[in-house]
Amino acid sequence: MKTPNRKAVILLSGGLDSTTVLAIAKSDAYDITALSFRYGQRHVHETEQAEAIASSFGISDHVVVDIDLRVFGNSALTDNIAVPKSQNVEDLTEEIPVTYVPARNTIFLSYALAMAEVRNANTIMLGVNALDYSGYPDCRPEYVDAFERLANLATKRATEGDGVDIVAPLINMTKSQIISKGLSLGVDYSMTTSCYDPDDDNRACGSCDACLLRLQGFQQNGLKDPAAYQETLG
Amino acid sequence: MKTPNRKAVILLSGGLDSTTVLAIAKSDAYDITALSFRYGQRHVHETEQAEAIASSFGISDHVVVDIDLRVFGNSALTDNIAVPKSQNVEDLTEEIPVTYVPARNTIFLSYALAMAEVRNANTIMLGVNALDYSGYPDCRPEYVDAFERLANLATKRATEGDGVDIVAPLINMTKSQIISKGLSLGVDYSMTTSCYDPDDDNRACGSCDACLLRLQGFQQNGLKDPAAYQETLG
Repeated sequence: MKTPNRKAVILLSGGLDSTTVLAIAKSDAYDITALSFRYGQRHVHETEQAEAIASSFGISDHVVVDIDLRVFGNSALTDNIAVPKSQNVEDLTEEIPVTYVPARNTIFLSYALAMAEVRNANTIMLGVNALDYSGYPDCRPEYVDAFERLANLATKRATEGDGVDIVAPLINMTKSQIISKGLSLGVDYSMTTSCYDPDDDNRACGSCDACLLRLQGFQQNGLKDPAAYQETLG
Repeated sequence: MKTPNRKAVILLSGGLDSTTVLAIAKSDAYDITALSFRYGQRHVHETEQAEAIASSFGISDHVVVDIDLRVFGNSALTDNIAVPKSQNVEDLTEEIPVTYVPARNTIFLSYALAMAEVRNANTIMLGVNALDYSGYPDCRPEYVDAFERLANLATKRATEGDGVDIVAPLINMTKSQIISKGLSLGVDYSMTTSCYDPDDDNRACGSCDACLLRLQGFQQNGLKDPAAYQETLG
């Protein structure tokens, strides 16, 4: 491909990981299009948060796409299946969690690819992580590589010599390392929520998989998570 | 992978190609989920047609997904760019037409992949064709292969040993061969429209790329296209 430009499309959910990716892209001087989705998730606060975060990074090009994953059902994040809760992080299993949404990252990346073509961006960045979420097939390096290969066959731009890199800067980092990186770049993690089951005031539950991993990450940095929780945590 | 089952998700636009694919899948005794999209296309008749066609094949599982490709703009099929017209099929160029929608097949296949996982289907079928539409990068065999590779890394089902085949039965057929195949399976092509620019009564224009190729295909079979056109054609 030609020399890649510095335009990037960033998948931004408003959680800890994607916000850290946004900070990395910003510090690497990318010209950023942030892309978020309203996909029938139970916690609609997500997109409001993504908007506030994009704005705090001075991103004027933030696109929110409405998509309806509910036609597929089958996930605790969009259906009325109970989100599993644990008391500590050791209880987490290697199994694929019920919070898995079918083909979600493939759908999100497909939209990102369309946006990259329209914005003439040579880079798509996303916050997938293979360590903490080994249970999600579409968070693994081989998945990201396969999407990149597809992307470079899929679009008019790519066939004309302007390919696209799929960059997953957090893929081999622990939650603790991700938080450390984000803090060094000035991320305000109080703006982010990772919880699968927040209450109506968007306060985290403190006991779903995502909360446990996040709390452990801050703990390993010797810090208290600045996010709002439903009850004060030790 | 395990022995594939006979469940298939079929991308059905209601055009000539996808309707022929549906007929092929039906004759191959697949248990079919038809998947169509309302994607801000100018000709909304498409989904009504797809519904009528699915129904005529006795398909009870037909899902129409609303997606908004208009956030990306940049295509004659969703914007107010003029559809190019020609007088005869020799005028068609090898260039990628302005009717190209960014990453459309990638987005459609991503939804099909999610649906295949939810329906436990081992097959996704689509009507892409590399000969007539050489200008569309996401209609080539290497694109279809790359999506299949991605699909088998992307989902919980695939990682558990139940992979998915992406089948494009028309990929190396001429329009004439596609029509011949469909007719042998009893397809009623009067139900299908291929036109990029139909009028309000869903009558084809007769002069866009899709119309020219279709008309030639029927002609080569010694037949008259049974679809409705805006004026009587020689």
